[in-house]
Amino acid sequence: MIDHEKLKARRARLSDLPQLLKLLADDALGKNREAADSSEACYVQAFNAIDSDANQYLLVCELDREVIAMLQLTFIPGLSRRGALRANIEAVRVDSGLRGQGIGSWIMRKALHLARERDCGLVQLTSDKSRTKAHRFYTRLGFIGSHEGFKLKP
Amino acid sequence: MIDHEKLKARRARLSDLPQLLKLLADDALGKNREAADSSEACYVQAFNAIDSDANQYLLVCELDREVIAMLQLTFIPGLSRRGALRANIEAVRVDSGLRGQGIGSWIMRKALHLARERDCGLVQLTSDKSRTKAHRFYTRLGFIGSHEGFKLKP
Repeated sequence: MIDHEKLKARRARLSDLPQLLKLLADDALGKNREAADSSEACYVQAFNAIDSDANQYLLVCELDREVIAMLQLTFIPGLSRRGALRANIEAVRVDSGLRGQGIGSWIMRKALHLARERDCGLVQLTSDKSRTKAHRFYTRLGFIGSHEGFKLKP
Repeated sequence: MIDHEKLKARRARLSDLPQLLKLLADDALGKNREAADSSEACYVQAFNAIDSDANQYLLVCELDREVIAMLQLTFIPGLSRRGALRANIEAVRVDSGLRGQGIGSWIMRKALHLARERDCGLVQLTSDKSRTKAHRFYTRLGFIGSHEGFKLKP
């Protein structure tokens, strides 16, 4: 069992890109979507677009200087709910060899802390309907599955 | 029946704020969430936060110089799907006196056009599970209800 005291949360750096892509590809739904080569221009450009945007926070969890989990927070200003900022979470991933040790909860709690720091009125995410284990995980964290999540390739 | 040729799409302006808040409040779920006074600082600040962010597009539909529908697009840079930009849609509203005349489809098609212009790989939105009419509407537009939508008040 991993000692959570040894985990460290920080903003992702460009040098993390190979490990971030490994986490994204190491997933039942993601494995056919990603290329193996993290030096590809599309990934470097995307990283820089995230990193230069004050409303994006690509959060990683480090253990012994290795990135073992990630997620992306996007802060969305809006008029609804008296002009509340909302936090949208995408790309939640934990190293497949280290699951079941509370790392997902740990990084999600860090994300919720960041959302509270920015005074967000709402945190939201969607999860593919096939990911039933993930749904139980989010429910345990206090999320309510109150919405249908719609996607379209434009 | 409204002549769709008379509809005009444009980016929202600060002077639209009273009408935008009217549209947000004129809704079964939104009516208890919003204040009546659009001059309140929280709304003006939120409008400016949206308007000054290159990744936000608060889109309105005008008929005879009156705003009759709205939605908010947020462009989210990400690493997934080979660094694809995704478009998130919030706050889709049509004047309750003008529903059933294709205005919702009209403004959604404008939003999808903006997403294609930015080369988005995915467009996404969530809709409260109680809004079954809205779900049929999004499905007709080509959206797939493939995801669970989770929300949490942090």
